[in-house]
Amino acid sequence: MAYLDHAATTPMLDAALEAYVATAREVGNASSLHAAGRRARRRVEESRERVAAALGARPSEVIFTGGGTESDNLAVKGIFWSRRAAGAGRDRVVCSAVEHHAVLDAVDWLVRHEGAEVSWLPVDAEGRLSPQRLGAELDQHGDRVTLVTAMWANNEVGTVQPVADLAAVAAGHGVPFHTDAVQAVGQVPVDFAASGVAALTVTGHKLGGPTGVGVLLLARDVTATPLLHGGGQERDVRSGTLDAAGIVAFAVAVETAVKAQQEYAARVAALRDDLVARVRRAVPEVVFNGDPVDRLPGNAHFSFTGCEGDALLLLLDAQGIACSTGSACSAGVAQPSHVLLAMGADDDRARSSLRFSLGHTSTAADVDALITALPAAVDRARRAAALRSTPR
Amino acid sequence: MAYLDHAATTPMLDAALEAYVATAREVGNASSLHAAGRRARRRVEESRERVAAALGARPSEVIFTGGGTESDNLAVKGIFWSRRAAGAGRDRVVCSAVEHHAVLDAVDWLVRHEGAEVSWLPVDAEGRLSPQRLGAELDQHGDRVTLVTAMWANNEVGTVQPVADLAAVAAGHGVPFHTDAVQAVGQVPVDFAASGVAALTVTGHKLGGPTGVGVLLLARDVTATPLLHGGGQERDVRSGTLDAAGIVAFAVAVETAVKAQQEYAARVAALRDDLVARVRRAVPEVVFNGDPVDRLPGNAHFSFTGCEGDALLLLLDAQGIACSTGSACSAGVAQPSHVLLAMGADDDRARSSLRFSLGHTSTAADVDALITALPAAVDRARRAAALRSTPR
Repeated sequence: MAYLDHAATTPMLDAALEAYVATAREVGNASSLHAAGRRARRRVEESRERVAAALGARPSEVIFTGGGTESDNLAVKGIFWSRRAAGAGRDRVVCSAVEHHAVLDAVDWLVRHEGAEVSWLPVDAEGRLSPQRLGAELDQHGDRVTLVTAMWANNEVGTVQPVADLAAVAAGHGVPFHTDAVQAVGQVPVDFAASGVAALTVTGHKLGGPTGVGVLLLARDVTATPLLHGGGQERDVRSGTLDAAGIVAFAVAVETAVKAQQEYAARVAALRDDLVARVRRAVPEVVFNGDPVDRLPGNAHFSFTGCEGDALLLLLDAQGIACSTGSACSAGVAQPSHVLLAMGADDDRARSSLRFSLGHTSTAADVDALITALPAAVDRARRAAALRSTPR
Repeated sequence: MAYLDHAATTPMLDAALEAYVATAREVGNASSLHAAGRRARRRVEESRERVAAALGARPSEVIFTGGGTESDNLAVKGIFWSRRAAGAGRDRVVCSAVEHHAVLDAVDWLVRHEGAEVSWLPVDAEGRLSPQRLGAELDQHGDRVTLVTAMWANNEVGTVQPVADLAAVAAGHGVPFHTDAVQAVGQVPVDFAASGVAALTVTGHKLGGPTGVGVLLLARDVTATPLLHGGGQERDVRSGTLDAAGIVAFAVAVETAVKAQQEYAARVAALRDDLVARVRRAVPEVVFNGDPVDRLPGNAHFSFTGCEGDALLLLLDAQGIACSTGSACSAGVAQPSHVLLAMGADDDRARSSLRFSLGHTSTAADVDALITALPAAVDRARRAAALRSTPR
């Protein structure tokens, strides 16, 4: 199989899996007072320090969660609730138009269920947000805004946002800035303190760690109302028995991915550039989406005009090529990508899109396999689409 | 080490850990459409069927979550929100006085944050709830109640509740009944359909599965507003990338624990009865807490009059005995147990309590070790407490 869907999930590193197994073999609840409990607690706290050091945060700013979706929901709803409760009539969220559904649907729920107001930040044709535009929005509504949320890098088209500039604008208006950095960590340099963001989402399974473990980095002066109440773990912001084995494995993966980032990015971007050039030669009328420069190293995203993305995906799958029409999390839902529509693509272009994403196990053979299979698959998908759109 | 704290967390079964590793070695996001994704989805769906079969539920009633705390919060807040939104002026929760903090603090948050009303259901001196009392409560407030929540078995004193009777009373008033069965599954027979409950919480790490994986069983006619919005996984009730490895390991553990339950209960209850008899001989003035008959097989809970439970715990820990003063999740918090206070214990008795909980790896040697260490530890803890309470 040529696995070109690392942005959906990437293989767990051997070192992370070994750390999981070693820790899972030790009994002990990290909240227990006896020696077994204190050992589990030590494993968690050592992992917290490793994660903090790798991401430019303080250990006390690391909140372990059950993954990216939980971290996003905690940031968006938690900061909204907390800032609204602090008074001053704040009830607004500023959200980029190209967020992952974990942010988008959390914001949408705040609108429907909690009476929140929302401003959607538009993007340009390459999927980039504008700090100036955010500034104008906050000049107008700043005193009513609970938080701004905009991802570090887009999961579909790979565009990397000017996060530090956006965060500086928000900070200038005294508004906390949350960023979903699920696709960014290990791919591009991510430093929590240097970026100036108030809250940052990371998840394990996008960087060689386990699924179901993530963190929300939360600056010490920012409060969030918990989603999960209970034992009071994690600064009382996130209750639940600490998954020591998962957390240790997560820390190994974060540390490894961050240490390897520069070399990884160079190697994978070279493979990706080769993939892009060869796809363009193989299918000349293809449209390449996203920012050509400020872009995740492993991401290549195309619209194959005249094809249905889903059909093309399945034809490639039949040839042993795994890729995606967009976010795995909304796969199977027959809707054009909100990201491409926000970039100004029409319905047809949005529906004809495929994402190829490379990662730590990718090789030139994966690219070769894609290029071998692609022309016939595109041809077949086009004929199928043409047949379907023929009036009867 | 004599590990007598299985109710806090119990060692992961080898078979569960092996299943975790085998699945974690396969790449694929269960929401992806390609072959690797479909394989991950198949692993999840097979696990869902195994869990459903083991617990007397339908596969569609199994909602995978990040653990017991999340399942409890989802049931309590989710059903509250959903039933309140359905109108008819419902804003009340009926909650037992002896719940785990994951339920208690979720209810408390609904009161403080959402303006909910709450009725606390009292327990008798052995920690038992009364179906009659619930009936009286629902006769009075039934049309305003969103849900009733009462645990299957108490995590501290081990008392098993008359869940089916309580659920029948709630059903008679048309009110959904949620039960936290975290301590019950694998210890006593638990059948979702036969019990008549609407929602039931299970977690992995109390029964030989991984930490950070749980389920909420949710009857098909009961709706819950999600806590986590996003990709729409799990009937749209719980979004987040499915942790295929964790879920497969969880299913192995649930199936194993349920299959072994009868034999397990007989073996562990015999060990426990021996422990109780020998503790009583070693420390004759000890008070045994909880229901003597309707009780978890592995649970022994005592008040050691004249001792501080925390001090006794640490003295035993120094001799290699791991036990607990109550819930691990509130360990370290210097408050007397709300469970014992609800049972009518005074502050001193509540503070002098220790829980010994046995599990699948327990042996007679663990009990021997406790009985060897206990008299001197009690003696020393008493002298320390007496010294501290002497007026100066």
